[in-house]
Amino acid sequence: PATGTGFDVHGFGPGNHVWLCGVAVPHSHGLNGHSDADVALHALTDAVLGAIAADDIGRHFPPSDPRWKGASSDRFLVHALALMGAMGGRLVHCDVTIIGERPKIGPHRAAMRARLADLTGLPPTRIGVKATTTEKLGFTGRGEGLAAMASA
Amino acid sequence: PATGTGFDVHGFGPGNHVWLCGVAVPHSHGLNGHSDADVALHALTDAVLGAIAADDIGRHFPPSDPRWKGASSDRFLVHALALMGAMGGRLVHCDVTIIGERPKIGPHRAAMRARLADLTGLPPTRIGVKATTTEKLGFTGRGEGLAAMASA
Amino acid sequence: PATGTGFDVHGFGPGNHVWLCGVAVPHSHGLNGHSDADVALHALTDAVLGAIAADDIGRHFPPSDPRWKGASSDRFLVHALALMGAMGGRLVHCDVTIIGERPKIGPHRAAMRARLADLTGLPPTRIGVKATTTEKLGFTGRGEGLAAMASA
Ligand SMILES: [Mg+2]
Ligand SMILES: [Mg+2]
Ligand SMILES: [Mg+2]
Repeated sequence: PATGTGFDVHGFGPGNHVWLCGVAVPHSHGLNGHSDADVALHALTDAVLGAIAADDIGRHFPPSDPRWKGASSDRFLVHALALMGAMGGRLVHCDVTIIGERPKIGPHRAAMRARLADLTGLPPTRIGVKATTTEKLGFTGRGEGLAAMASA
Repeated sequence: PATGTGFDVHGFGPGNHVWLCGVAVPHSHGLNGHSDADVALHALTDAVLGAIAADDIGRHFPPSDPRWKGASSDRFLVHALALMGAMGGRLVHCDVTIIGERPKIGPHRAAMRARLADLTGLPPTRIGVKATTTEKLGFTGRGEGLAAMASA
Repeated sequence: PATGTGFDVHGFGPGNHVWLCGVAVPHSHGLNGHSDADVALHALTDAVLGAIAADDIGRHFPPSDPRWKGASSDRFLVHALALMGAMGGRLVHCDVTIIGERPKIGPHRAAMRARLADLTGLPPTRIGVKATTTEKLGFTGRGEGLAAMASA
């Protein structure tokens, strides 16, 4: 048994939705990034890669590579899980915490867990999706971006 | 086996003590929050909820609900553990990291572990309580608030 | 089975290299700290201590103690692992995430994993070393310092 952890940040920019856990969430801004900037999927992908000690998302999908421009982050997670499978591993549980003031996550949680269930093959009962604010403190508190922490 | 993780932040405000791991720690400020703002118990409660994929503390105890105004955060953790038990789960270990410059945690660590042992039923030897500063950097470094990270 | 987590921060100061996972990485700055300020080893040491509920690195190696001035952080991790062994425990996996804009970690990852393998006795296949930026946000984004998160 092994538990990997991941962390990621993306900053807000122009847009009308953010991608979080593979779900488009309407918002006054988008998230900047080379891919779709799904900070939650990036943290979770890194947690999976950490569990199998297979480097990090930046090594597998370098932001400098035009192939990943605007890419759906779904493929990053699917790739990490395929590596895990190839090494004889199996994901049994995952947990994501989205850190920021807005958008509110609660109304989208069920959709996020369903999407992660699709991507991972886990039942939703093994998929935690949580959110917390930083009470107006720090860059997340000032609404400059979102952070995410994950374990797998 | 599953490991959940949690994270929380509360900002300093007027007061002469902060609640951390269910212990009142004398300090030049208090922590602002709808409940007792025990950032360590909130992170740990979210870690427990993450381990059983049962949403987050904000869903179970919305800050908008007057019932939780000034509430002791003990009840949040106890509630999460009851949910875990109802699902056939059992907590075997937990670990909390309190992030901030002050107050110093060391002198209160034994009391915190004893309190968490009371609340969880775990022996103190399965309860980690750690602290770290951020070396004057960021909002914790500027003394604007405290953060906590937990696993369960 | 138990999973501990750790977190640490150090600020940049004068210097031409930073210590990360026991490896000297050339950089335009050093990291300030009483010891060698290896933020990654400190987070990992705290994760090990959290897994065995043996307090934190600050209690075992107080910054106020002149013995640890300029100390190699290798000894902190080795000490934590010796404590784990004395309690009948055994490390089976560890994972570190280094958070900051620079220096780039990728070119040094293999050396870091090899060094951690030396220190822990684990095969590199059980040692995750990851890095992420915070997209110019927060103190890590402004280049004021580095943070690290670890699990063990
Ligand atoms: Mg990212
Ligand atoms: Mg809270
Ligand atoms: Mg340190």
